[in-house]
This record gives sequence, structure tokens and C-alpha cells, in this order.
Amino acid sequence: MIDRAAITAARRQLARQPDFLRTTPLMRVSGRSLGVECGEVWLKLEHLQVGGSFKARGMLYRLLASPVPDSGVIIASGGNAGIAMAAAAQTLGVRCEVFVPEVSPEAKRSRLRALGADVVVAGATYADALQACVARQQATGALQAHAYDQPEVVAGAGTLALEIEEQGGRLPDSLLVSVGGGGLIGGVAAWVDSRAHVVALEPERAPTLHAARAAGMPMDVEVGGLAADSLGARRIGAIGWEVSRHHVHESLLLPDEAIRAAQLWLWKELKLAVEPAAALGLAALQTGAYRPRPQETVALILCGANFDPASLA
Amino acid sequence: MIDRAAITAARRQLARQPDFLRTTPLMRVSGRSLGVECGEVWLKLEHLQVGGSFKARGMLYRLLASPVPDSGVIIASGGNAGIAMAAAAQTLGVRCEVFVPEVSPEAKRSRLRALGADVVVAGATYADALQACVARQQATGALQAHAYDQPEVVAGAGTLALEIEEQGGRLPDSLLVSVGGGGLIGGVAAWVDSRAHVVALEPERAPTLHAARAAGMPMDVEVGGLAADSLGARRIGAIGWEVSRHHVHESLLLPDEAIRAAQLWLWKELKLAVEPAAALGLAALQTGAYRPRPQETVALILCGANFDPASLA
Repeated sequence: MIDRAAITAARRQLARQPDFLRTTPLMRVSGRSLGVECGEVWLKLEHLQVGGSFKARGMLYRLLASPVPDSGVIIASGGNAGIAMAAAAQTLGVRCEVFVPEVSPEAKRSRLRALGADVVVAGATYADALQACVARQQATGALQAHAYDQPEVVAGAGTLALEIEEQGGRLPDSLLVSVGGGGLIGGVAAWVDSRAHVVALEPERAPTLHAARAAGMPMDVEVGGLAADSLGARRIGAIGWEVSRHHVHESLLLPDEAIRAAQLWLWKELKLAVEPAAALGLAALQTGAYRPRPQETVALILCGANFDPASLA
Repeated sequence: MIDRAAITAARRQLARQPDFLRTTPLMRVSGRSLGVECGEVWLKLEHLQVGGSFKARGMLYRLLASPVPDSGVIIASGGNAGIAMAAAAQTLGVRCEVFVPEVSPEAKRSRLRALGADVVVAGATYADALQACVARQQATGALQAHAYDQPEVVAGAGTLALEIEEQGGRLPDSLLVSVGGGGLIGGVAAWVDSRAHVVALEPERAPTLHAARAAGMPMDVEVGGLAADSLGARRIGAIGWEVSRHHVHESLLLPDEAIRAAQLWLWKELKLAVEPAAALGLAALQTGAYRPRPQETVALILCGANFDPASLA
């Protein structure tokens, strides 16, 4: 299982590329200024990471930790993971193929191409694109990267929590983490290692971890709704599931309206332009779905900003 | 003249309202990651300040440093200063009247009303609104606040530079500062006190400080263009002018196209959604209008984000 030693090792490797990853800011505000009865709220502004999401940490680490053949790296992703891998591959001078489904918007494809990736449109759904990607990998021998369910990808994401602890001088009392396929919460919860309270947050319409906890095992769920673009994995990854069984203390679901309201609040009141997936933490606080103790320090991870800013107007 | 002691005093007073002002993040990135040949670039994310601009510092200090009559505070502003004063007055429970010209957009008026301000629409231009505001002040005896040319307003803005020095552990080698009426650069340059290189940046179409330096005295200029909304003062303020004569080392003009390109770059590559006025520093670096030395540490102040995010799409 991913543990703190694995995350420390990831951080050491990632430091070999100091001009790529950013140390994203930790902004500390009073709970009261967010309308929440608690002590401080720490906002980890990880949407300012290269590629516009936390994914760059895991994707770069996947490349640094593995031998990369001449055929380069290959990934199926219509979203943040693809952008992050394309950026990491470009910085290392590695060939990169990204498989996307037919439904993926042209804006994302051209962003991938601008980062030097070869974009292959394959199949109606993400599952189809993944199948085509795997077939292609078998033909070329390229390094396969997974959007969330590989040890390097999860350990890379965990460096974000290590960074929060360094920047804050300690761990917060609780961390509120959005969950899609479990890469982020796997890394964060492994670093926290039950030294603080970790809360998993999912949209009601994309409940992969919540459903797994109810069933006692990962299972497929229907996904849809506002944040499906980045949190719409159909099943929690094996690594994220394993870590979360030990170190995630609560799993909460939030309705799309609350997520949307929090996203708009973040822009209007804090001038933070983030995608819906990054607003679940504030939504949990402002709706009372998560109720901190009076002096509790709560950390929210703003995990991405790959979205159309016109949707904030 | 405003000096470091005045700014230290401002900071002490402002700390009396710990839930209002935010300590905005200082994000450090390599020059190379911005495509600039220099050491580090420090981005002061002051657009994340309450009210969406640095103005909240000076406006709150104006209120804290002066006796406020029952008639409250009064200001003429269609933009960031009005929003900041309305927010500061609301937090202190002080009455606030904001005079805006007929050209001001309804969105800004409703934002001011939402912050509890009484909005008075008066006259075709800002100058007309100011005249009506002064007449009203004489009738009511309210505390008059100026958007940039009052000692408390400039000293309050200076606390931003103090904060940069604290957060960075030292001053940067140079600071690139956008100039409208001179409130921000007056405060920043007074704090820096010639211990670092201060560069004034203005749009070609709103050159208040540049024109004053050429003429040897403040003078009216024509204003227009992309950033006129927040940098469109017609004449540099007396306080900003006085400080800048001693502590501002260079004054540069930038074309609107360069400002717009930098604004779009900040969103696309850094996911920072800022108004045009906040993009002049990056524009100066990326166009080569300002050329740092190879190891120089350059600070940019992202001063505001009160704009329509749809303009980034």
C-alpha cells in the first residue's frame, strides 16, 4: 500500500524537475470570513498547478519512476490527467499519445495538441477510448499511464498533502477531499496516515467511493452531473480504495446545486476561478453537510480549474 | 510624506480587524516557467484580497484612522475603491454612500448595494460624480474617502509591500507596479524606500505618471483603452507623485495588445483570473519592455480581479 515513505520518495524524485511543478499557495482565512463556525480554513490552491490541476504531480512521477521507451507514454483521458501528462511529457521530451472519446470537446483536444501530444479520437465513451488505448499500447510498447490507479500516480498526488503540512507548519485538524477515481484521496489519506480527519466528498451523481463503502467493495456506478467531467470515474481505483479503507473517516455526498453555489461563491467572494470538482469542500462547509468543531482548522483542496470561465458570469 | 513608519502604523491598526483583510498568497515560480530569463518571479496574489483588489487595505485604514460621524463615509468611485469601501464600511457597521457616474454598469451598482452601500448615480463622467459627492459631503458631514490620494489610503496600500517582504523573507530585487492614480505605487515605493528597484507600469492610453515625469509635475492626460476601468485616473495623485519622485526608478508604457495577451496567458497557463490592470507586470516581462538581470528576483503585484470572466474565454 502507498505510505508516507513512498510519498517522500516521490517528492525527492519530483524535485529533479524544479521548473515544472509549482509549490502552490496555501491561503489561510478565518472560518468566519467564509460564513463557517470554525477556526481557520486553509485553501490549498492546487488549481494553480501546471496543467491546471493536481494531476501533474502524479503524471510527472509516473514518467520519472519508470523507464520510458522510444514509443513514449500513452494514456486514455479526456480531461485533467491527459493535459497533465502531455505537459509532463513535453517537459521531459517524451513522446505522448492521448486517447480521447468522440464526446470530448475540441477545446480540450487542441489544448492537448498545443502541449505536443498526439491525440487519438477512439470510441463513443471513455471506456471505449481506454480499450483502444490498451490495444495501441500492446502494439507500441509505450509506457501506459493511468489517470488515477497506479502507485506512482497516487504517491505523486500525496506530495500535495506533504506540502500542506510543510506550509501550515502542521497538519490541519481535517482535510476535505473531492473524490473521482481515488487518486487524490489515496495520496492525501496515505500521507495523513490517520493523523488528521480525512473526509471524502463526492457529487450525489458520481458516488464511486460512497457506493464502495456501502457495498464493502469497489463497484460500478452510474455517473453524471455537474462535476462528471473530472469526478466521473465509474469505479473507485483499487489503490485509492485500499488506502481509504484505513485512513478515510467519512464519506459525504453533495447535490449539484450546492456544488454550483460554492463554485460561484469562490469566484464572487474570493476571486478563485475553479472547476466544480474543486468546490465540493466549500459546499460541504457552507451547507453544513460537514460541521467542524468550533476551533477546528479545516483544509480544502482546490484541485482544478480546467473549465470555461464564462460559466462564472 | 508617507514613510515606512506610517505603513507599520497602518499595519498595526489593520490588525484590529483580523477577519476582514486577508494575507494574500505570494506564489514563487521560476522565471523560466514564465518564459523569462531571470531568477524567481514572485506573484503577489492581491486580487484575492477582500473586495477583489488591493483597495480594501487603504479603505479600511481610512475608516479606522479617522472619527466616522453618524452620516458615515462617502466616496466617488465606479470601481474597485467603491467596492472596497462598501465592504469595509459594512464590516464596521458604518453607513456608506458611493457616487457613481451614469456610465457605470448595473452589475457594479448591484454589487455595491449588496455590500450595503447607498448608491447615488450622478453625472455623465467620474468627474461629475466626484463633484456631486463633494457637495453631498458638505451637506452631511460624512467622512470623505478618496480612491487613491489620501495618506491613509496610500499607507494602507503600502502594507502590501511590507507583506511581500515578510513572506519572501527579504525584498525582491525589483517590483513591477501598475499605476492608475498612484495609491498603490505610492504605498509600495514608500515601503521599499529605495532598497529595491521599483518600476511603474502604465497602459500607453492611461499614462498619468509617465506624463507627470516628462513634465516634471502632475498633469491631466486623456485616458482610455483596456484597463481604463481601474487605471484610468486622469492625473497622478499628489501623494503618489511625491513618493514616486524619490523612490520610483523607471516608468514604462505598455500597449493594450501586450496587456491583453498577458491577461490571457495568466489564465491559460496559471489559472489566475485577473483584470487587465493586474497583467501589466507580466506584459512588461514577456514583451521585454522590462529586462531583468539573469539572476534577478522580480515581484509582480496582481492587483485586482473585478471583471467579467467571460472575457477570458
